[in-house]
Amino acid sequence: MASQTMSRRSFWTWGLESEEPTDAQRRDHAAMLSDRHGVEIVPPPIPRAEDLEMRSPRVTAPDNVADFCSSSNYERARHSYSNNDKDPAVFGLFPNPPDVVAHPRTEEELERVLDWCSSKGYAAIPFGGGSSSVGGVTPPEDRDVVVTIDMDQFDRILEIDETSRAARIQAGVYGPDLESQLRPHGLTLRHFPQSFTGSTLGGWIATRSGGHYATNHTHIDDFVESVRMLTPTGWWESRRLPGSGAGPDPNRMALGSEGILGVISEAWMRIQVRPKYRATAGVAFNSWEEGYEATRQIVQAKLWPANLRLLDPLLAGDSAGLDGSHALLVIGFESAETPQNWPMSTAVEIARGAGGQIDDEDILIDDGSGQPTGRGGAVGAWRNAFISVGGGLTAGLGLVGGTVETSITWERWPEFDAKVRAAVNGVLREVCGGGTVNCRFTHVYPDGPAPYYTYAGAYRVGAYAEQQAAIKKAASDAIMAAGGTITHHHAVGKLHRPWYDGERPELFATALRATKKALDPNGILNPGVLIDV
Amino acid sequence: MASQTMSRRSFWTWGLESEEPTDAQRRDHAAMLSDRHGVEIVPPPIPRAEDLEMRSPRVTAPDNVADFCSSSNYERARHSYSNNDKDPAVFGLFPNPPDVVAHPRTEEELERVLDWCSSKGYAAIPFGGGSSSVGGVTPPEDRDVVVTIDMDQFDRILEIDETSRAARIQAGVYGPDLESQLRPHGLTLRHFPQSFTGSTLGGWIATRSGGHYATNHTHIDDFVESVRMLTPTGWWESRRLPGSGAGPDPNRMALGSEGILGVISEAWMRIQVRPKYRATAGVAFNSWEEGYEATRQIVQAKLWPANLRLLDPLLAGDSAGLDGSHALLVIGFESAETPQNWPMSTAVEIARGAGGQIDDEDILIDDGSGQPTGRGGAVGAWRNAFISVGGGLTAGLGLVGGTVETSITWERWPEFDAKVRAAVNGVLREVCGGGTVNCRFTHVYPDGPAPYYTYAGAYRVGAYAEQQAAIKKAASDAIMAAGGTITHHHAVGKLHRPWYDGERPELFATALRATKKALDPNGILNPGVLIDV
Repeated sequence: MASQTMSRRSFWTWGLESEEPTDAQRRDHAAMLSDRHGVEIVPPPIPRAEDLEMRSPRVTAPDNVADFCSSSNYERARHSYSNNDKDPAVFGLFPNPPDVVAHPRTEEELERVLDWCSSKGYAAIPFGGGSSSVGGVTPPEDRDVVVTIDMDQFDRILEIDETSRAARIQAGVYGPDLESQLRPHGLTLRHFPQSFTGSTLGGWIATRSGGHYATNHTHIDDFVESVRMLTPTGWWESRRLPGSGAGPDPNRMALGSEGILGVISEAWMRIQVRPKYRATAGVAFNSWEEGYEATRQIVQAKLWPANLRLLDPLLAGDSAGLDGSHALLVIGFESAETPQNWPMSTAVEIARGAGGQIDDEDILIDDGSGQPTGRGGAVGAWRNAFISVGGGLTAGLGLVGGTVETSITWERWPEFDAKVRAAVNGVLREVCGGGTVNCRFTHVYPDGPAPYYTYAGAYRVGAYAEQQAAIKKAASDAIMAAGGTITHHHAVGKLHRPWYDGERPELFATALRATKKALDPNGILNPGVLIDV
Repeated sequence: MASQTMSRRSFWTWGLESEEPTDAQRRDHAAMLSDRHGVEIVPPPIPRAEDLEMRSPRVTAPDNVADFCSSSNYERARHSYSNNDKDPAVFGLFPNPPDVVAHPRTEEELERVLDWCSSKGYAAIPFGGGSSSVGGVTPPEDRDVVVTIDMDQFDRILEIDETSRAARIQAGVYGPDLESQLRPHGLTLRHFPQSFTGSTLGGWIATRSGGHYATNHTHIDDFVESVRMLTPTGWWESRRLPGSGAGPDPNRMALGSEGILGVISEAWMRIQVRPKYRATAGVAFNSWEEGYEATRQIVQAKLWPANLRLLDPLLAGDSAGLDGSHALLVIGFESAETPQNWPMSTAVEIARGAGGQIDDEDILIDDGSGQPTGRGGAVGAWRNAFISVGGGLTAGLGLVGGTVETSITWERWPEFDAKVRAAVNGVLREVCGGGTVNCRFTHVYPDGPAPYYTYAGAYRVGAYAEQQAAIKKAASDAIMAAGGTITHHHAVGKLHRPWYDGERPELFATALRATKKALDPNGILNPGVLIDV
């Protein structure tokens, strides 16, 4: 078995086992929360894999796959949940684990395990990092046997084409490991979703993840040259091309397929030379409205900043130390080739014209020397907060919080924002007795922003799952009614299904079902995700 | 009937009837060619619609569609060919015309005509401008009845959202008419394929046409917010969104569908404010190799110029007045918001570092005053030559010429270029006794160029169709063997089928067939194009 104890991932919370808090730390944290909220909060003890009581595996891996398969408690627990539905894990509850977890090490082994599932009609769940926030890798409850195929052994960069700036990369590599393999060449993929440390290239492609670039090339989609994917019917591999107009783009069918059509084994990805020149500015605005109007003007000027992230006054206060009445727009440019003073000064000029406040000395410029000038202001604190970690401290304590994200055109945006906030505040009052909601733009397009709402319920001992479900429903209903998408970059999975079913053209679902039926005739791949067949 | 005599399109050559040459002009041109080539070249007389001998229509339009349908000689001749296979037209040969040509004026009429075809199993050909260079709208020969659905009555912009910079546009509008409707608002789509004057928005979407922007947003794909399309099974309409990550992108299934899944009726398109600031430079290089190396460096610096078109020495000599030994790189920046001096000077600096030759005084800068400074050099002549016109003068004279276009990664490009040129020169010697081939980049990506080869056979009275087919085959075989795509922006149609069939993943064809079967169960839409069912 491949997974090593030293670096293996926690089966009950986000991150590595080595990053888990101790029971004592969790008790201290609970005591602090008890004081703050005036209710007694008692953390469940951290579960141990060897103590878990789990349903016996309903099948045994046959000889030809046995040496890369496991049915250990740890493996089955680790693959029992997606990140969003993991709450029972801290209580040691794993009522529906996969029966077998495979870690194929070669394409031939991948073929063997998929053939096994296909021939027996077992559900097969392609698994990257398990960071799905929409139940994308959670075993289905209505299947007799479930086999999870964890791609973590596909963790290498196989080829680098420095001239074309592209690399052939195995799908199971985690973000940090991918970057570590590119760094010695002076290269980078520069795709940093919030889940970066706990997600993989294959997962990014399967879910159309949103990354580092706030404008222009926002999704992983834009960096895919070709995809190699194993379906139950055989291999799917597109030609490596900078661009093509030959029929509908095959890559766009793999992108967003969420494991229902095949298991992605590798991809040729467009990569970057590591940036050397940088410019960063945090611009304050007297109001949210001023801030988003400035953001619109900057993105429509097509300067394509790498960063263009707007925080509403509540979030700017909490995360970046502003006074709670000002919105903050973080603008960033970067380049491997040329200083970024001009695009930055142009963007700042537009921002100022729309009411933005920033001193010239607060613009941080790195002219390639690695010795930036300028103060940078509130930007540093915010940047460090972007990639999320932890969760282990508060797991199982009943704190209700989460996110919804979407996109909408500018013309409809102000009314959209008002409606979504009203819906979330309303449901928070109802199910939590109150709470907060803030908003930022994670990505911005000339025709509209991708807003990201974060909510937190006032602490109330209650039915955690029901509270979360009620908030999610109210927010999602509002998003859909006001014309947004159910997800800009969190995928559909199972959680977003009810709204996705109303969003995509009905005939596209017909097409997708027909495609699924043709490629996966026994319907074994990731049942319940994206569509029903 | 909608088509008016004054502005109607020629049924035997490119463009409007009012732009056709006269018989006298054609005889003069033939005499000039006779002198040049030392063979007697006699032009066939221009055909007249009323004289055409055509197969009788095999069906009569029923009452509920009759008032927007026609089986006149003109209508059937006009819709008998795509642009690439029109050569017999000048001889008055129309052996396989559609039986009926419909010009629906409303979606309800569109439904009626598609229902009629669907219920009877008649082939239905969605028709934009007919400018396909791959047989994309040519009636199939193996069907009993063929109905062409010309969308030219869907010619209006229905809605403009200036805040989001988007417009809802009917699919049948021709390029110039589309721009005329946006111009009063200070807006533009800025999508100018070479076929601009003779093609429509719906055609661009159905074929993933390549447009104005040489970098970044090169295909029409990038400007589509949503698509509305009538399939034989009903309407397909995507939600209007700046971006989404909800499953595979439905728009990407409509884009490139080439009329086999449905008839596009309208789309929300991302539009632009008309540019005010411009910078243009023509940079000369001592060799083709120096030129493409400079182009690679500029595109990889991600300055995203609107224009970045490289001409090889032969083409730079013929089209832009250079001496035949220098390559020419045309760089252009444009913006509605801000002067383009900085990106231009940065690009020129990179070009010079790679051997580019240009005087500062030759850089043309428009600072927004509309009074450009700088000489511009050879650029003007080239720009005017980009949008092609005419054809009427040489039609039917037996001149063998054409284009092939593709894309390829930078690392493979030099060898690729050598192989394609060798193949084309070889076949030109073989079937024409010689000829020329030149190359330019129409679009450029960080990971590779989109080269466009133009060939012309030495004049030889011969079998025109066989010569063309032999050249096309040799060039396409070489492109595919060397790793390119069969088309960057000319679509697949029928002409590119043999190579496309080897290019797309076989399982993608399986998926597309399944989709086609689900949406068009009787297989009536554009038979023979893109896939067989």
